[in-house]
Amino acid sequence: MCVSSAAHRVVIVGGGFGGLQAALALQRKQVEVTLVDRRNFHLFQPLTYQVATGALSPGEIAYPLRAIFKRRPNVRVVLAEVDDFDLEKREVRLGAVGDVPAPASLPYDTLIVAGGSQYSYFGHDEWREHAAEVKSLESALIVRSRLLSAFEAAEAETDADRRAAWLTFVVVGAGPTGVEIAGQIAELARDTLRGDFRSVDTRATRILLVEAADRVLTAFPPSLSSKATRSLEKLGVTVLTGRAVTGIDRESVVVDDERIPARTVVWAAGVTASSLAGRLGELSGADRDRAGRITVEPDLTLPGHPEVFAIGDMVRLHDGLLPGVAPVAMQQGRYAARVVADRQKSRPTPPFRYHDKGNLATIGRAAAVADVHGLRLGGLVAWLAWVTVHLWYLVGFQNRLLVIIRWSVSFATHGRGARLITTQPGGNEPGRP
Amino acid sequence: MCVSSAAHRVVIVGGGFGGLQAALALQRKQVEVTLVDRRNFHLFQPLTYQVATGALSPGEIAYPLRAIFKRRPNVRVVLAEVDDFDLEKREVRLGAVGDVPAPASLPYDTLIVAGGSQYSYFGHDEWREHAAEVKSLESALIVRSRLLSAFEAAEAETDADRRAAWLTFVVVGAGPTGVEIAGQIAELARDTLRGDFRSVDTRATRILLVEAADRVLTAFPPSLSSKATRSLEKLGVTVLTGRAVTGIDRESVVVDDERIPARTVVWAAGVTASSLAGRLGELSGADRDRAGRITVEPDLTLPGHPEVFAIGDMVRLHDGLLPGVAPVAMQQGRYAARVVADRQKSRPTPPFRYHDKGNLATIGRAAAVADVHGLRLGGLVAWLAWVTVHLWYLVGFQNRLLVIIRWSVSFATHGRGARLITTQPGGNEPGRP
Repeated sequence: MCVSSAAHRVVIVGGGFGGLQAALALQRKQVEVTLVDRRNFHLFQPLTYQVATGALSPGEIAYPLRAIFKRRPNVRVVLAEVDDFDLEKREVRLGAVGDVPAPASLPYDTLIVAGGSQYSYFGHDEWREHAAEVKSLESALIVRSRLLSAFEAAEAETDADRRAAWLTFVVVGAGPTGVEIAGQIAELARDTLRGDFRSVDTRATRILLVEAADRVLTAFPPSLSSKATRSLEKLGVTVLTGRAVTGIDRESVVVDDERIPARTVVWAAGVTASSLAGRLGELSGADRDRAGRITVEPDLTLPGHPEVFAIGDMVRLHDGLLPGVAPVAMQQGRYAARVVADRQKSRPTPPFRYHDKGNLATIGRAAAVADVHGLRLGGLVAWLAWVTVHLWYLVGFQNRLLVIIRWSVSFATHGRGARLITTQPGGNEPGRP
Repeated sequence: MCVSSAAHRVVIVGGGFGGLQAALALQRKQVEVTLVDRRNFHLFQPLTYQVATGALSPGEIAYPLRAIFKRRPNVRVVLAEVDDFDLEKREVRLGAVGDVPAPASLPYDTLIVAGGSQYSYFGHDEWREHAAEVKSLESALIVRSRLLSAFEAAEAETDADRRAAWLTFVVVGAGPTGVEIAGQIAELARDTLRGDFRSVDTRATRILLVEAADRVLTAFPPSLSSKATRSLEKLGVTVLTGRAVTGIDRESVVVDDERIPARTVVWAAGVTASSLAGRLGELSGADRDRAGRITVEPDLTLPGHPEVFAIGDMVRLHDGLLPGVAPVAMQQGRYAARVVADRQKSRPTPPFRYHDKGNLATIGRAAAVADVHGLRLGGLVAWLAWVTVHLWYLVGFQNRLLVIIRWSVSFATHGRGARLITTQPGGNEPGRP
């Protein structure tokens, strides 16, 4: 330790975009940082959907947290679950991850909680077992197995109706993730897998993108939503806007009143804040919205607890909701670090303000939409912007190089190198060795 | 289908080295090939141990079987379990893999069975739950999680004895896999993870390589065994030859009479043939050896069944046992294909003969041993030969490129990019999403 034991102790919960940026911003300061996560890696979540379709391998979009802070003796990484907080004693209570023991608690002078969010099934938790999600690496690998297994099942199935159900893919929610995954499934079916099968023509695959709102990508201006819809339709995706999913079971999806036989459903609809937000709300009295987000002060702290920051997509500000995207979490992480540093120098910090650098979503090969300060782009230009931004923010030089190669080869050959079925089709268990 | 329905039907069971080579050799012949495997990919097994230590990612050493035969309409890939054979009716009976249905049976004119082998625990199946293996991709990912979790646990553990047990790694069996994995664990601990932890010095890691024979790498000449032992000891591996493992439980390994507290055991000792070999033996009366291998005729067919070939490390020849390595399986696969083609032209085929091109084993960074027709090499030269041969045989241009990059970066930085804990430490379940 190059920091004295009297140093200001900052505990950061969560190694996602917000928590990681807070830790990076504090690593050269006179503070003692402890970064707690139940995973040993930072996941570049915006590309998780590419793992789900076999375009990238998990190791290419994840980076060990310890490797990031290897040469920073004032940053300690702890692999643990966060069980609870004690805001009075200023302690975080920890639990073990599997066999790995954890310290019972971590005392802090400043706490930064960046617990993120998870998908919400609008009160229909029974849908969760039939739908797959693209959120964690494991869930993306389950989606990968299910997508690829569906084509395998269609190839083996002799009954025409059952085969059609295997070749019908329903994506629920047309935000950026839903649009991306629908586009990727279309490209997988029409290009990558073309010629792989003998009994089925994968180009006959039906991909339905269901969205309750009246257009896709509601965070973008309507003109870009239309562009995106046209791109999706060109890829063969059927876009169903203004339609609600009212049921999901093992063999079908109900859209409004229509039962559609479909064996593969990818859920990309509403999110709900991490349960850590709920706990902080209970303890501090902070308001919570319907999605479980807590309302934080203009400096991102809890009401009555200036030493506790809550950041990322588990919080909202008094003056409104920011989008649940990486740039917001990253800027909030850096802001919280700045407040900590300013306080040490008894300097005031102006309230947090989000600098919106623009909004990007990709649909497929050379197709994307971008909204940058009113500049509305589509097609190849937007797609190149998307590629550049994502490579820029991907952690680790080697990962960037590997992803560039994967993407270049995929672009040239329509191939997807990592289309492995490594979890048991239909289940969440790994294949038996 | 460009092949008439009267074409000679060849069913190949197993998409490993033997089965894949047989299918590749038959893909341009006037036969209808069906390749059955319960996995949808070919695994380049000699590099699986690098996945186990985070040096490579699963997608880099596995390649989808369908992609290999995309442009070969006379080759059909079937994802299924093989449940049984009916040698009289000439049918292979299939079972479903997860949700993916399979045809009940596949009729054949020629059958080629390449079921491979698995690790055997010498009658101590209770050891299986405490030891990890490097065989399938899933088992390698479990090893990766256990190795990395052990260091995490050591970092969190405050009791000195328990910490020492977490930092003790026992590898059982000093064949090529055991030697490779011991060397990799040593490099992981001493180089890659150096500086990653705050409470433990990973260079204090103990790695024991236990071998019942009197030297490591018994398939090599004694002089190369000595070279390998010296290389291992230089890396910090304790080589225990002439010592038998007599017990494994959750917290320790018993070597002869000595109980060694150790939380991580990697099993790389004896193998036993696939259960498919046993079934073929029962049905045909072929002899079986202690390791379950069946004895095949000089043309690799079953006694009394010239239409059934059995190849790879689940078989032995009358005149002796060949090593259970990829080149043997590959040559046998190509040989079986050649017999099929020769028979169609009513040409005799000389008996199978193994062309031994040499033997290679790697120990670590710039350290390997090679025995090529009596030429005995060690050090950097042998290691470069190893790197070249492995890249040469790795399937897929993209995979080669990705592996070259991973290896170059690892060589330059001692880093290992893919050290992710993606299965629950201590268990075989994936981490919860």
